[in-house]
Amino acid sequence: VTGGLTLLAVEGVGPIGQGDDVAARLLAALATGGLMLCDGDVLCVVSKVISKAEGRFVDLSAVVPSERALALAEAVGKEPELVEVVLSDSAAVSRAAPGVLITRHRLGHVCANAGVDRSNARPAGAPADSGPWALLLPSDPDASARALRAALEAASGAQIGVVITDSLGRPFREGSVGHALGVAGLPALGDQRGDPDLDGRTLEHTVTALADQVAAAADLVAGQAAEGRAAVIVRGLSWAPDPAASSAALRRPADRDLYA
Amino acid sequence: VTGGLTLLAVEGVGPIGQGDDVAARLLAALATGGLMLCDGDVLCVVSKVISKAEGRFVDLSAVVPSERALALAEAVGKEPELVEVVLSDSAAVSRAAPGVLITRHRLGHVCANAGVDRSNARPAGAPADSGPWALLLPSDPDASARALRAALEAASGAQIGVVITDSLGRPFREGSVGHALGVAGLPALGDQRGDPDLDGRTLEHTVTALADQVAAAADLVAGQAAEGRAAVIVRGLSWAPDPAASSAALRRPADRDLYA
Repeated sequence: VTGGLTLLAVEGVGPIGQGDDVAARLLAALATGGLMLCDGDVLCVVSKVISKAEGRFVDLSAVVPSERALALAEAVGKEPELVEVVLSDSAAVSRAAPGVLITRHRLGHVCANAGVDRSNARPAGAPADSGPWALLLPSDPDASARALRAALEAASGAQIGVVITDSLGRPFREGSVGHALGVAGLPALGDQRGDPDLDGRTLEHTVTALADQVAAAADLVAGQAAEGRAAVIVRGLSWAPDPAASSAALRRPADRDLYA
Repeated sequence: VTGGLTLLAVEGVGPIGQGDDVAARLLAALATGGLMLCDGDVLCVVSKVISKAEGRFVDLSAVVPSERALALAEAVGKEPELVEVVLSDSAAVSRAAPGVLITRHRLGHVCANAGVDRSNARPAGAPADSGPWALLLPSDPDASARALRAALEAASGAQIGVVITDSLGRPFREGSVGHALGVAGLPALGDQRGDPDLDGRTLEHTVTALADQVAAAADLVAGQAAEGRAAVIVRGLSWAPDPAASSAALRRPADRDLYA
């Protein structure tokens, strides 16, 4: 359909363990699902898959909280070991209140608990008496996206974009929404400037968070399966490949943070 | 495809003028495009169409700024008449800085300039020497969504959801993203709680901003046309109709605003 968009779930990518080749797993899952990557497709991959392949697991029972983590844990009512892990992956605390710890992650994202995930965070083969476990965000989601794009383009022959996604909360709104943590090929921002309106005014609201919107759309598909779907193809989007694309364009710099 | 999602652009809804019957225009555009509404479809409609039908136009040359608007306009470097209009549609100022005026809109959304739109905001037939013009957000987007849903269900026989969307900025991230200003039928929030993970922990990050994600996805389609597409069908989403659905569930109450 002209002007339409199709989102296709890629089933059966997981479970992923430390050291697994995510590109190879994606290619196998695409083949099993009878899906072929086409020119212009954007493949969205949930960050958890990348984190697990990178072995970003933390056994909280082995964490020794700092004085700062102990004090902050008391203030927000969270486990000191978790707060220590959050602080170790953060550049600054944005807001702390009972039940809430929002930080500026070292990658620049402002989000709850530095994106640390407590669900299904146990590594395969971990002893039964280990943990509880937590999973950190990938160490460099843009680099992960670039590596996946290169491997998948080489294997498929298609020119694609890759977005590493995570579901994050928002400061003024309830509920989580898919966000782009890493991008490759697909420009992070979409620019609709340039066309004057009927009054001759330049159009406003014209820079869209293209990759965030793609991630939010993909989360509608990824989030609706009981076991989750680790990847979603977004097909039909109009975009021009940018070899220098980076998720950094989506993050408002700390010195422009109006809510610091 | 199992687990997939299709977004279909509805072309030719506009231009809309004050008093136009938006439901009738949507039905005509659907028929022209050969599109039929199906059970489970969510129809996303851009708020500008609703605002124009409601006649929410303001001729800024006729606005007399208050003392408060004059002072704030000076501080943010915006036209006093625009600031007056923004304040008149807002409950509180959230942040003001050079070039930036973020308010809590009377509907509860925290956004720049109370969502007041300066692009293509001139009403049809306005004298050439009138304006500049601005367009306010719809007066009650949930009520608009409910009315559209009732009219479109009656005409089509399909059970659908309706989301009134607008593209808004975010405090910590660059670029605008589609958000749900009004909903009908479709629950504003999606609940993925209840399933324990492999460790027996209840899943976290489980309340998704379903209607906001739908709006973000629709904006990928609506925003990619030179003249804009006023409506987008989201097909293939799994959801249970909620007659009491309201966008209020998406807005964090002011007393829970961590960045007040």
